[in-house]
Amino acid sequence: MTKQVLILPGDGIGPEITAEAVKVLEALKASDNLDIEMTEDLVGGAAYDVHGVPLADETMDKAQASDAVLLGAVGGYKWESLDISVRPEKGLLRLRKEMNLFANLRPAVLFPQLASASTLKPEVVAGLDILIVRELTGGIYFGQPRGIRTLENGERQGYNTYVYSESEVKRIAHVAFQAAMKRNKKLTSVDKANVLEVTEMWREVVDEIAPQYPEVEVKHMYVDNAAMQLVLNPKQFDVMVTGNMFGDILSDEASMLTGSIGMLASASLDENNKGMYEPSHGSAPDIAGQNIANPLATILSAAMMLRYSLGREDLAVKIENAISKVLDQGLRTGDIYSDGMTKVSCSEMGDAVVAAL
Amino acid sequence: MTKQVLILPGDGIGPEITAEAVKVLEALKASDNLDIEMTEDLVGGAAYDVHGVPLADETMDKAQASDAVLLGAVGGYKWESLDISVRPEKGLLRLRKEMNLFANLRPAVLFPQLASASTLKPEVVAGLDILIVRELTGGIYFGQPRGIRTLENGERQGYNTYVYSESEVKRIAHVAFQAAMKRNKKLTSVDKANVLEVTEMWREVVDEIAPQYPEVEVKHMYVDNAAMQLVLNPKQFDVMVTGNMFGDILSDEASMLTGSIGMLASASLDENNKGMYEPSHGSAPDIAGQNIANPLATILSAAMMLRYSLGREDLAVKIENAISKVLDQGLRTGDIYSDGMTKVSCSEMGDAVVAAL
Ligand SMILES: CC(C)[C@H](C(=O)O)[C@@H](O)C(=O)O
Ligand SMILES: CC(C)[C@H](C(=O)O)[C@@H](O)C(=O)O
Repeated sequence: MTKQVLILPGDGIGPEITAEAVKVLEALKASDNLDIEMTEDLVGGAAYDVHGVPLADETMDKAQASDAVLLGAVGGYKWESLDISVRPEKGLLRLRKEMNLFANLRPAVLFPQLASASTLKPEVVAGLDILIVRELTGGIYFGQPRGIRTLENGERQGYNTYVYSESEVKRIAHVAFQAAMKRNKKLTSVDKANVLEVTEMWREVVDEIAPQYPEVEVKHMYVDNAAMQLVLNPKQFDVMVTGNMFGDILSDEASMLTGSIGMLASASLDENNKGMYEPSHGSAPDIAGQNIANPLATILSAAMMLRYSLGREDLAVKIENAISKVLDQGLRTGDIYSDGMTKVSCSEMGDAVVAAL
Repeated sequence: MTKQVLILPGDGIGPEITAEAVKVLEALKASDNLDIEMTEDLVGGAAYDVHGVPLADETMDKAQASDAVLLGAVGGYKWESLDISVRPEKGLLRLRKEMNLFANLRPAVLFPQLASASTLKPEVVAGLDILIVRELTGGIYFGQPRGIRTLENGERQGYNTYVYSESEVKRIAHVAFQAAMKRNKKLTSVDKANVLEVTEMWREVVDEIAPQYPEVEVKHMYVDNAAMQLVLNPKQFDVMVTGNMFGDILSDEASMLTGSIGMLASASLDENNKGMYEPSHGSAPDIAGQNIANPLATILSAAMMLRYSLGREDLAVKIENAISKVLDQGLRTGDIYSDGMTKVSCSEMGDAVVAAL
C-alpha cells in the first residue's frame, strides 16, 4: 500500500534542504520500489504569510492523514515581532501536540570523517554517540495557565506552567529504557529534583519503572550538572531522557559538541511509530536562499523516517551508507568544510548522495 | 566600624574550603587592618542534622544582621531522599530569597596558567572572560503554585510556575547593563521568547531599558541556541543576563568550558551590595573530608566579598594577585593538576595563598 508522506519545507533554508531529501526519496522510488506518495504544504512563517496562521487546519488534517511528515525548519527574523500565538514555531508545536508526537529522539553522533570539526579536543569527543530522548508534547511548552497579565500596581507579569503527570513521564521513560536496551544499557534521567517538584515526581516515576529493565543502569542527574558533564566528559552518556525544555537545551548543547550539527537528524514519534522527522538545526535565515546549507541532516532525517515510520530499514541503511561515502570522497558543505576537502553547494551535496546510493 | 561576616561552611567539601578562605581573611586582619568579625553557623544538610531544617531561624537572623555571608556548598547523597521542602538546597534558597539577593554574578574566566585544563581546543577558549548575570530570587525557583497533586484518575501530577514581573526583570537587567558598561559593552539576554510568554515579556522589558544604555550592544538569544553558542564560540560573549533556571544551567556550562570550575567564584547581591559569596561548584560529597578539594574558588569568593560588600578593593586585588602567584609557582590541587606541576592538598593551597599575600 502506498504510504503518504507530507513534506513541510518551512522557512529559511528549509525549502533548500528538504528539496535535497526529496531528491533522494525520488531516487529510491525509482530504484528500490519505495512506495510513497509525497505532497508538499506550508508551515511556519511561510504558512503565516499566506494563511495568517503558522499551520492551516487543512495542513494539520493532511499531517494526521499521512504516515510520516518530513519537515525542514521554521522561524526567522521576519516573524520575530509577531505575537507568540502566531509565530512560526507555533505551527511546529501544533503538529507535535495534535499528532501526539511525545517521543523526540535526537542522536548526537560524531562522524569519524568530521572529527576535527568539533570545538572540543579530539580525545574528548572521538566516538561520541549519545541519544537524547526528549519528551515533546508536555512540560512547560504546553502547560496551562500561561500568558502575560497586568498586576494591580500596573506592571506586567509573565507566567507559564511546568507540569507533568505520571503517565506522561512513564511513556517517555519506557521509550528511553527500550532505546537503552538496544544500545549500551545506560540511561541518565535529567531533572532539577532538588528544586522543582514537577521533576521530583519525574525522578520518582523513572525509579518506579526501572525494575522492569533490570539490565539498564539508571542514573539521575541535575540539569545544571548535565550541562557541565556534557562539556567535561560527554562520552559518559549513552541514552539521556528528560522533559521538553531541558531536552531542548541539552540536545542542542550535545549536538554542538559533535561539531556537525548540520549532520544531525531527529525523529518525533507517537505511540504507533507514526512520526515527524526534522534536522536538529534551525532555519538559519542568514544563509537562506544561497544554496550553501548542509542538506545531510534532512537527508538523514528521511533515513530515520524510512526506518521508524515506513518500514524500510534497508533504505535507511542505504542512505546512511551513501552519506558515509560522500564524506569519504571529501565532499563538504561550508559548515563542515576543512582544508583539503572539496567544497560543494547544498544541491551538489544532494546530487552526490543520490549518485552514491 | 567592624563589619560582620557570617561563615556558612555547609556540607561536603564546604567546611574544608571555607576554612582556607577564613585563613586568608584572618591573615588580612593581622596584616592589613581588615576590620571584620567572623561568626560561623550551620546551613544545608549540616543544619538539618542538628535542627531538622536546612536553615534555622536564628541563622537567618544572623545572616540578615551581617554585612556579608561566605558560604561553602550545600547538599549531598545523604539528604537526597528527603522531601524537597527540607532538602539542604532549601537553606540556600531561603538565604537568597529572604536576603533579597536577586543579582547573581558568575564570572566564567579562563586562567592563563590553566589553559590546557579545558576540554575545548585552546584557540576556542584562550582569553575567555564571560560574566553571567543570573536573576536569583524569582522565576520558576520560587513561583507559586507548586507541588505534587493527585488527579481524579489517581495519577500524580507535578507542577511548578515560571513567573516574572516587569520590575524583577528591570532590576536585574539594570545590573547587567551596568556590568556591561564596565566591561566590553556587549550584553546577551537569554530567553525562550518563541515559546514561553514569561520570557517574551522578559525580552520586551530588556528592550525597553536598552535605550538608557546606548553604548551597550544588546542581543537576544534563545536558550537552546545560547547552550550551543557557548560550545561553538564562547568568546562571542561578554555579559549574559538571564532568569534563575536558565542561569543555573548556562552558568554551569560556561564555567565548565574554562576547565577550572574549582577556580570560579560567585556573588549574590541585593540592591545595596549586601551579599552572599560562594564558589560556583557544588559540595562534591565524593571527595569530602579528604583534604584534596580546591579552595581557590572560595578564596576568590572572599575576594569578591571584599570588593562588593566590604569596600576593600585593595584586599580583593591582593588576594587575586596572591592566587596568580601560587599558580605561577606551579601549585595545583588535583582537579587542575597537570604534568610537571606540584600537587598540593586543600590546606597546603590555602597556606600557599597566605604566604603569597
Ligand atoms: C523552534 C522551537 C519551537 C523548537 C523547540 O524549542 O522545541 C526548536 O528549538 C527545537 O528544539 O525543535
Ligand atoms: C544547589 C542548588 C539549589 C543551586 C541552584 O540551582 O541554584 C545550585 O545549583 C546553584 O547554581 O547555586
